[in-house]
Amino acid sequence: MNRCLILQSEVQSFIERCMIAVGAKPAHAKSLADVLVAGDYRGHYSHGLNRLDMYVKDIKTKICAKDGEPVVINESVATALVDGCNLLGPVVGNFCMDLAMKKAKDVGIGWVVARGSNHYGIAGYYSMQALKQDMIGICLTNTSPLVVPTRGKECTLGTNPISVAAPSKDGDSFVLDMATSAVALGKIELHHRRGDEIPEGWGCDSQGKISTDPSKVLTGGGLVPIGGCEATGGYKGYGLGMMVEVFCGMLAGSQYSKHIRTWKVTDKVANLAEPGVPVVTAGDPERTNMKKCDELGGIPYHISVVNYMNNMAKDLGVNPLLPTERKVEE
Amino acid sequence: MNRCLILQSEVQSFIERCMIAVGAKPAHAKSLADVLVAGDYRGHYSHGLNRLDMYVKDIKTKICAKDGEPVVINESVATALVDGCNLLGPVVGNFCMDLAMKKAKDVGIGWVVARGSNHYGIAGYYSMQALKQDMIGICLTNTSPLVVPTRGKECTLGTNPISVAAPSKDGDSFVLDMATSAVALGKIELHHRRGDEIPEGWGCDSQGKISTDPSKVLTGGGLVPIGGCEATGGYKGYGLGMMVEVFCGMLAGSQYSKHIRTWKVTDKVANLAEPGVPVVTAGDPERTNMKKCDELGGIPYHISVVNYMNNMAKDLGVNPLLPTERKVEE
Repeated sequence: MNRCLILQSEVQSFIERCMIAVGAKPAHAKSLADVLVAGDYRGHYSHGLNRLDMYVKDIKTKICAKDGEPVVINESVATALVDGCNLLGPVVGNFCMDLAMKKAKDVGIGWVVARGSNHYGIAGYYSMQALKQDMIGICLTNTSPLVVPTRGKECTLGTNPISVAAPSKDGDSFVLDMATSAVALGKIELHHRRGDEIPEGWGCDSQGKISTDPSKVLTGGGLVPIGGCEATGGYKGYGLGMMVEVFCGMLAGSQYSKHIRTWKVTDKVANLAEPGVPVVTAGDPERTNMKKCDELGGIPYHISVVNYMNNMAKDLGVNPLLPTERKVEE
Repeated sequence: MNRCLILQSEVQSFIERCMIAVGAKPAHAKSLADVLVAGDYRGHYSHGLNRLDMYVKDIKTKICAKDGEPVVINESVATALVDGCNLLGPVVGNFCMDLAMKKAKDVGIGWVVARGSNHYGIAGYYSMQALKQDMIGICLTNTSPLVVPTRGKECTLGTNPISVAAPSKDGDSFVLDMATSAVALGKIELHHRRGDEIPEGWGCDSQGKISTDPSKVLTGGGLVPIGGCEATGGYKGYGLGMMVEVFCGMLAGSQYSKHIRTWKVTDKVANLAEPGVPVVTAGDPERTNMKKCDELGGIPYHISVVNYMNNMAKDLGVNPLLPTERKVEE
């Protein structure tokens, strides 16, 4: 009985009056209130009213701009680059989504990237705007570093959410809205407060080792990408997180890329979790394989593959597959 | 010493002559050879020469068409719907990627969906075509069902790969090419042959329970989505797999959707892994929360949140947040 009920309209109005009190434009305050109330309504309290003080502080301390509107820097009929002018995230998010939908109506798709934006609540709020127009919405954002890449030991990736909303029949819809970390930081904190262990695959310690001790994750460690450790496919979540950085950070020329610039620095070997097991990015293992092939002067195959193929060749009446005379080590 | 070396040109030519022998057009045979050789060269032997017999059989048994070319059914300056006319996957994949790049050159982005296609090798082959033109490439495909959704016990999702290739400086690139299952089926088979256990989070038994016994996964069980079980975020991988179905299957009106039609059938309660723990899709948990809020007539908040907010309200000199008089159960 320690929970009370608040009318949505009251939560909305409270957020607006707090934001206006610190100087936000009424329209900007409304944009923020809309997405925070949607977060709570959908059950994602970590992205709702709970975060209000952060936004209040952002305006109060002038970390976020309160005047102006986002600006289109460059555009085609189907794409645009937007400068969010350091305004509140929801102001930028709405601007971009509206622009993308307008373009999609014209030419079937709109892809808009933004720089100079800020925290914008749940990503799903924006992708879901498309549902109202019977379109599929996609919204991605990079975020502050909380996630340790596979084989790394430093938080260099954000929780970088991916959201896709697709309309279905009778008002039903598919709404994917997921961080590319295994879980949110809040889940680790909750277990910590309760004194519970966390499941394997949620976070790692300061050495980048998967840990079930929430205090280790919270002090010097970090979240791990979806998939957990390397053996269970954590490198895939790491790849997805990087994909979001590519689309949102690099493609936009965003200033939120300090963590990206850090992670691929080549003189940081001393900072890797395990010597001899270097942090790699998507495409690197294949590059290594191709280099090996190039050095060998061909592609290595198991002899049984060649035999199998040559049985088939016989059946088909074609010349057999011809290996070089060079054998290779396993 | 059981591996031999084969020149890439010989692998290429062997694949072409086998395909031509069963009646494939030389250009189609070349398309297939290109992507299979690329698979092996990049180290993904599961998507290279090893698969040749499948393609040979597909043409021989007329499962795949050997005559004709893909057709554009509908298009805008930025998008297109293509009918692959049941041709070999690489023929359709190349056609779509070429079309997407042409559009991207014109208007900044090209998004092409295909129906009537077939297995097309590594998805990364197609996304990487964009690198040659200094563009970012994206390629997704749905596939035959091998993956059991979170809380389910039936294979109803494909391994549905996501591939994104982005150019970088000096010929470097980011090339994500990942199945949305935790691992490929081949990895389970390998452990099975060796008599090894598999790590937790790779597959499940016929009841949908995560299992470390590869034989259980291979006989009646299935792969699980990246993230493993529900506690470690498997529902995110499940959501990503569904996202690929939405983009590739539903958006294209593809015939490869039998597994999709199956998984959301509502009279299949008897088929769920655990009574009371229903299979849900992305957006369902939020829908449940919103329904609860609607029934309650407001959003439930912990009293400490309200107190916190009202301290802030005092500081800001605004009216406090006003709960209703109704208290709610935890």
